[in-house]
Amino acid sequence: MTATAQRADRSFAPTSPASALVCRSCGAQYPLGPQHACFECFGPLEIGYDPSALARVTRADIESGPHSIWRYAGLLPVGQDVATRVDTGTGMTPLIRADRLADELGFTAPVWVKDDSANPTHSFKDRVVSVAITAARELGFTRIACASTGNLANSVAAHASRIGMPSIVFVPSDLEAAKIVQTAVYGGTLVGVEGSYDDVNRLCAQLSEEDEFEHTGFVNVNIRPYYAEGSKTLGYEVAEQLGWRLPGQYVAPMASGSMLTKINKAFKELVAAELVPSAQWKVFGAQSAGCSPIATAFAAGAAEVVPVKPTGIAKSLNIGNPADGPYALDAVRGSGGAMASVGDEEIREGIRLLARTTGVFAETAGGVTVAVLKKLAESGELDTSVETVVFNTGEGLKTLDAVSAGAQPTAVIAPTLKGMREAGLL
Amino acid sequence: MTATAQRADRSFAPTSPASALVCRSCGAQYPLGPQHACFECFGPLEIGYDPSALARVTRADIESGPHSIWRYAGLLPVGQDVATRVDTGTGMTPLIRADRLADELGFTAPVWVKDDSANPTHSFKDRVVSVAITAARELGFTRIACASTGNLANSVAAHASRIGMPSIVFVPSDLEAAKIVQTAVYGGTLVGVEGSYDDVNRLCAQLSEEDEFEHTGFVNVNIRPYYAEGSKTLGYEVAEQLGWRLPGQYVAPMASGSMLTKINKAFKELVAAELVPSAQWKVFGAQSAGCSPIATAFAAGAAEVVPVKPTGIAKSLNIGNPADGPYALDAVRGSGGAMASVGDEEIREGIRLLARTTGVFAETAGGVTVAVLKKLAESGELDTSVETVVFNTGEGLKTLDAVSAGAQPTAVIAPTLKGMREAGLL
Repeated sequence: MTATAQRADRSFAPTSPASALVCRSCGAQYPLGPQHACFECFGPLEIGYDPSALARVTRADIESGPHSIWRYAGLLPVGQDVATRVDTGTGMTPLIRADRLADELGFTAPVWVKDDSANPTHSFKDRVVSVAITAARELGFTRIACASTGNLANSVAAHASRIGMPSIVFVPSDLEAAKIVQTAVYGGTLVGVEGSYDDVNRLCAQLSEEDEFEHTGFVNVNIRPYYAEGSKTLGYEVAEQLGWRLPGQYVAPMASGSMLTKINKAFKELVAAELVPSAQWKVFGAQSAGCSPIATAFAAGAAEVVPVKPTGIAKSLNIGNPADGPYALDAVRGSGGAMASVGDEEIREGIRLLARTTGVFAETAGGVTVAVLKKLAESGELDTSVETVVFNTGEGLKTLDAVSAGAQPTAVIAPTLKGMREAGLL
Repeated sequence: MTATAQRADRSFAPTSPASALVCRSCGAQYPLGPQHACFECFGPLEIGYDPSALARVTRADIESGPHSIWRYAGLLPVGQDVATRVDTGTGMTPLIRADRLADELGFTAPVWVKDDSANPTHSFKDRVVSVAITAARELGFTRIACASTGNLANSVAAHASRIGMPSIVFVPSDLEAAKIVQTAVYGGTLVGVEGSYDDVNRLCAQLSEEDEFEHTGFVNVNIRPYYAEGSKTLGYEVAEQLGWRLPGQYVAPMASGSMLTKINKAFKELVAAELVPSAQWKVFGAQSAGCSPIATAFAAGAAEVVPVKPTGIAKSLNIGNPADGPYALDAVRGSGGAMASVGDEEIREGIRLLARTTGVFAETAGGVTVAVLKKLAESGELDTSVETVVFNTGEGLKTLDAVSAGAQPTAVIAPTLKGMREAGLL
């Protein structure tokens, strides 16, 4: 037994509800550990749980926990022992009742915005990284790494600084300046890669096989099964914040497609564990027209996702070869939901619509989601009489360029009453 | 009795602990309402409380309240009735134990970072605006306004959007681009003023006397006494997050000087109300060398603050004529603390130091505070054997330019193992 495996045994048993790594494609099972692909069929692995362990979790357990994702430790693969957690205060972000947005879009039922720009590095990635870096430490890794479109890089570098673990993050070299600076400021190693996110991701997959990276946990490569589970907390929080019940519809942005499927997984787990009443819900997926391989497959009725070369302003969603695309299609189709994509101008208008009706300033990914909410409400695919949650996954300050042209002062005046009068403001 | 006064009566009595507006200079008292200066001596007014009302607040009351500043409604002038509050989820920001920062600075006692970049618009201004806009609505105002160095503008515009109240915000026209865009995106009226913050402030004081602005609440002019109380919540939260006790030292940035004094007021109230054990603490104030009128008066042993023309990168602190300067001097001197100022390069290094040791990316104001923490620890004016709290009041994404020159990728490579080797990374 290796040192890594020993550490895993000690930390994951007996209090973790996780029981195995399960192939999402063929169902083969493997012991918990740093493995992400099935030896049988090369399908992606995810964490499987002991249903009876999940069923033992009570609302009271959760409510008495910390005001962070770790209140749901009983439903996550790692972090049951408080001392093992990397807790940066991630999670329990506001669920905002957006009545003015609902009115503008003709909803008669409540619309809620789950605002993950409130996380420490201002995107939902803090959720997956908190779980991944906790797992990495448990699995004996001494350095943390990732391939990123920006938000993940920010989060990995910040988490690593917090606990004093070295980090190396890989991003496309043409990323928004804000995301480069926000990552570099933490002082870890930041590598700009001349290519697309898909090129960066491929490089990281190669590196994870190299001897020099033996002790490096790539959050979205070799420890991806742990990492991806962090997104479940978005679903748990929505349910708890609604008073332990599920909304009838939700709209989530899609890059790899993972997050959308994990919210769905969380809702199913909550019902199975009787933490919420049994319910039906529909799942809706949002993409940018510049990178819509999953929405395109949905529209075509296809089961396969054909990779694309991404373009457009929603860079954090620009994954042309989305690993979880087929599972996102399954989740949406299985629920009776829909997918749509929106162009750059609609994305900008989505950002402005959300800002002026809710006070939430979203990054381009949030603009995509709100614009798709609008589009599907207008087409009737979203039922405006059903309570709906939309996920804002990132912060407008990270993609300022997207709206800066249309967001300038109403007037520039001399510092006098005369100046006010000349500008028509007095 | 005017409509305004009627509304005030209905909402402030009997559940608000506030009893009067009290002149900080001569002690004259006035009824609660939209007034900010003493008719007798022109001194600034602040909210006075009924000590017996404050003493009735219990830890249990607070702990059972919402996870926002409104859990302290029993200690604030407005918002006792839940229906009257503007609650954007502001407050209860992380108090981070910064062991790696403490180690670098030679502290043997714990150092904590109170991270207000976690507020909805990513600065402590959400606290004062939440209280001010709640008061404004109570006082019958139908539009909200402010003079701002940027963060306040962001917060006022966002809060106004959330509740659908018109806003008009005034900023120096040379502000950081990020702060202009983040304010304009909410769709309120944004006026760039050719001049310094002090010019902007003077214009707002004039406008508040104009008929056209009769129904406009200027958060930091005519409703400033309410507004300023919001900063007390920083002190309450630190005490609660430390397990209902006070730290021995705290370091806060100073612009007008108000916030530093309100944290001190909060600590005193907590002791008086027996919510924390009696304690001694020292107060430390931080300014940028480009705008250090209060720290300069401190160093000179002067009671008066001589206005300056601000320069330097810490724009959010650039108030050359600080309204609460004398009270900040009193708070620091009365506690046995100290003040210091730091130059732009020290500010940049403060931002980087905080980021690489805690994962918190602060704006320039946070860089000022951390750099002053370092400076006063090195000089011995801060006791490194005493538990210390430093306040980060804003978000690094808003002042990216300050650190962008030194925060670039470690390397830019081709997407291949060869590229990694050539960069010396493999």
